[in-house]
Amino acid sequence: MTSTIITPTHPVSDALLQRAQQVVPNGMYGHQIATGLWPGAPQFVSRTAGSRMWDADGHEYIDLLCSWGPIIHGYQHPKIEEAVERQRRICDTANGPSEHFVALAEKLVDVVEHADWAMFAKNGSDVTTLCLTIARAHTGRGTILVEEGTYHGALPWCNPDKTGVLASDRAGLAYYTYNDLASVEKLVAEHAGDLAGIIVAPFRHDPAGSDLEMVDPAFAQGLRRICDDSGAVLILDEVRTGFRMSFGGSWEQYGVRPDLSSWSKAIGNGYPIAAVLGAERLRESAGSFFVTGTFWFSAVPMVAALTSITLLEEEDGVAHMFARGDQYVAGLREQAASYALPVTITGPVTMPYLSFAGETDHEFTMAWSAECAARGVYVHPKHNGFMSTALTEADVDAVLVATDGAFAEVAKRFF
Amino acid sequence: MTSTIITPTHPVSDALLQRAQQVVPNGMYGHQIATGLWPGAPQFVSRTAGSRMWDADGHEYIDLLCSWGPIIHGYQHPKIEEAVERQRRICDTANGPSEHFVALAEKLVDVVEHADWAMFAKNGSDVTTLCLTIARAHTGRGTILVEEGTYHGALPWCNPDKTGVLASDRAGLAYYTYNDLASVEKLVAEHAGDLAGIIVAPFRHDPAGSDLEMVDPAFAQGLRRICDDSGAVLILDEVRTGFRMSFGGSWEQYGVRPDLSSWSKAIGNGYPIAAVLGAERLRESAGSFFVTGTFWFSAVPMVAALTSITLLEEEDGVAHMFARGDQYVAGLREQAASYALPVTITGPVTMPYLSFAGETDHEFTMAWSAECAARGVYVHPKHNGFMSTALTEADVDAVLVATDGAFAEVAKRFF
Repeated sequence: MTSTIITPTHPVSDALLQRAQQVVPNGMYGHQIATGLWPGAPQFVSRTAGSRMWDADGHEYIDLLCSWGPIIHGYQHPKIEEAVERQRRICDTANGPSEHFVALAEKLVDVVEHADWAMFAKNGSDVTTLCLTIARAHTGRGTILVEEGTYHGALPWCNPDKTGVLASDRAGLAYYTYNDLASVEKLVAEHAGDLAGIIVAPFRHDPAGSDLEMVDPAFAQGLRRICDDSGAVLILDEVRTGFRMSFGGSWEQYGVRPDLSSWSKAIGNGYPIAAVLGAERLRESAGSFFVTGTFWFSAVPMVAALTSITLLEEEDGVAHMFARGDQYVAGLREQAASYALPVTITGPVTMPYLSFAGETDHEFTMAWSAECAARGVYVHPKHNGFMSTALTEADVDAVLVATDGAFAEVAKRFF
Repeated sequence: MTSTIITPTHPVSDALLQRAQQVVPNGMYGHQIATGLWPGAPQFVSRTAGSRMWDADGHEYIDLLCSWGPIIHGYQHPKIEEAVERQRRICDTANGPSEHFVALAEKLVDVVEHADWAMFAKNGSDVTTLCLTIARAHTGRGTILVEEGTYHGALPWCNPDKTGVLASDRAGLAYYTYNDLASVEKLVAEHAGDLAGIIVAPFRHDPAGSDLEMVDPAFAQGLRRICDDSGAVLILDEVRTGFRMSFGGSWEQYGVRPDLSSWSKAIGNGYPIAAVLGAERLRESAGSFFVTGTFWFSAVPMVAALTSITLLEEEDGVAHMFARGDQYVAGLREQAASYALPVTITGPVTMPYLSFAGETDHEFTMAWSAECAARGVYVHPKHNGFMSTALTEADVDAVLVATDGAFAEVAKRFF
């Protein structure tokens, strides 16, 4: 089933980008730069609602990227917006925190299995960095083991791009291979007596269009054992994964409790907030030093987060996202098989990534994404997608009509 | 003039803090911790409006702290809230930036003298760090000169608290003394060939209750000359000062243009946003690497910032804040003199800090702040205050009634 689809043009977005190029280096930067999407992708967004977004030229899409994760209930969920609107009129950024600071910490401690306390910040990078500092404060040691090639943020210690970064910015780090416990054990031996902690993502999600790799439970359990044996701190980076693998923490299912976890994206349904969650034994160390940020205690994102997490709980949002993810991924697999396309789909179905075998620079995946976009579905060619509770079964049915047309086009052009 | 004032109690705030102590290390952390205020200060805030705030127990204050700077037009300024409310319904955090990203960059480039381009982030620490990275990318050198004891954020490289920090986190830094050009020149000689940049605050504002020190224009000009001679990058940290010393940049008045400047607090009137502004010659380097954050491109804080800056421009907000600051500081000086109190007031009148000679641990200043609070004025005993455009002449008159009572009480108890 193919149909003639005209790739949309974006004169409004293009004109905005031309203006932006005068006043922003390259006109845009970071993960949302449109040159990382399909060729000709629009840079600017004008509107969002529920499971939908509109680019600056008014083209509507069913959105499978969810702003790279934050939008877990769809854009402008009425209950979250109602709570936000009420709070915004009362108090947001102030001289001190609001009562919602306490309620949100209580809620996170209640729902996340390993958590006995919480601290809040703004960026994912704030909280991954804070986890390293707590681990070093707690152990009095320096070395943190980090997965080679992973993404824990864009500060000098963790940015995959080393431009402007000093070797000393990473002096306290040593790099292991994901799911390779021997590579960790080798480093543990090399840094015996100085091992402060191990930071790890719940599954392997390296930047720049890599396939995803689920964790081997034995690897997760091995890291826990190594940390127990050495007195080091196990840090689980939930910034990307939080609330999309399991409500109680992503490694709950493997029986592995981290000592610290870093959270951000999906906590507040798009409102800016991040959190460190920690186990009791780390509490004193976490409270042993000064750390802060101007907007870390603002009330509105805390109200958004509290409402969002309560909704997830009351409506069994994680199960909903898995159901929609199963529907989506099963449909994709069936379609790819029907066109005999060498498609790989990796990651949890709530955060799936699709790629094609045999491409050298994502050219097939980019073409597929472009064809999806021309058919009203927004899917990133180099980054996993995200399910949200706003997606209905009918939405995913509509998505699958678009993906089928996109597969047909890719099959015709490349295979 | 004294009157019997009962120091207010805060059972609601105290009960919230008891709950918080179960789920947050120490119950609270960072700059907004109430133990940094006067004895018995309330930790929690319940409501804000214009120049007023209410603590969790409903005590009303005229607020002279402005959330440590962000609130430049008063809380919930109607025009800003109207623009925010409109945008919030359309689009906030999305898959790409909105048109307001471009308009805000254009506005900042228009109003800030040295700026040819802008980049946005969330925290002050994001943008001070980004300035260092840009300077290193631009020069291919490592060393950044930093004022000994200053505050540029709470990441490992700049946190005044070194708990959990490695020596290597600061390996690329060397420390000068503010307003001491010889101390800078000594470091320049020591790091000849490796000098990437100098970061400096527009005036000296060290943490922990230090008096403020205005910059010697010859020092500012000397730093500019040193950077020109050595090819290093001059970075002005405007996070605390932006739009409260001068609309076009704080060192405009001394004829000194930085190459880069870091901004945050007062840009968005409480909405979370930060910015790097840069000169043309740094544009290519600023665009030469990947840097990002999940919420850096959200539309609502950009709309808030655009509206806030436009208001400052249209209503000559900086002049308004200086007028209120002059009224306040002149009143304080007159009152202190009338009680023969050894009061020192430092900093620009828009960001004044009051201390008492002869105190060892801010005990007089804390008592004075407590007496101000009991009389309905919120002023921090260890941090400069902030004027806002929401303060009327009558507000400052009311403030001065409270401060007079507080001075009388301090005179009676301590002098």
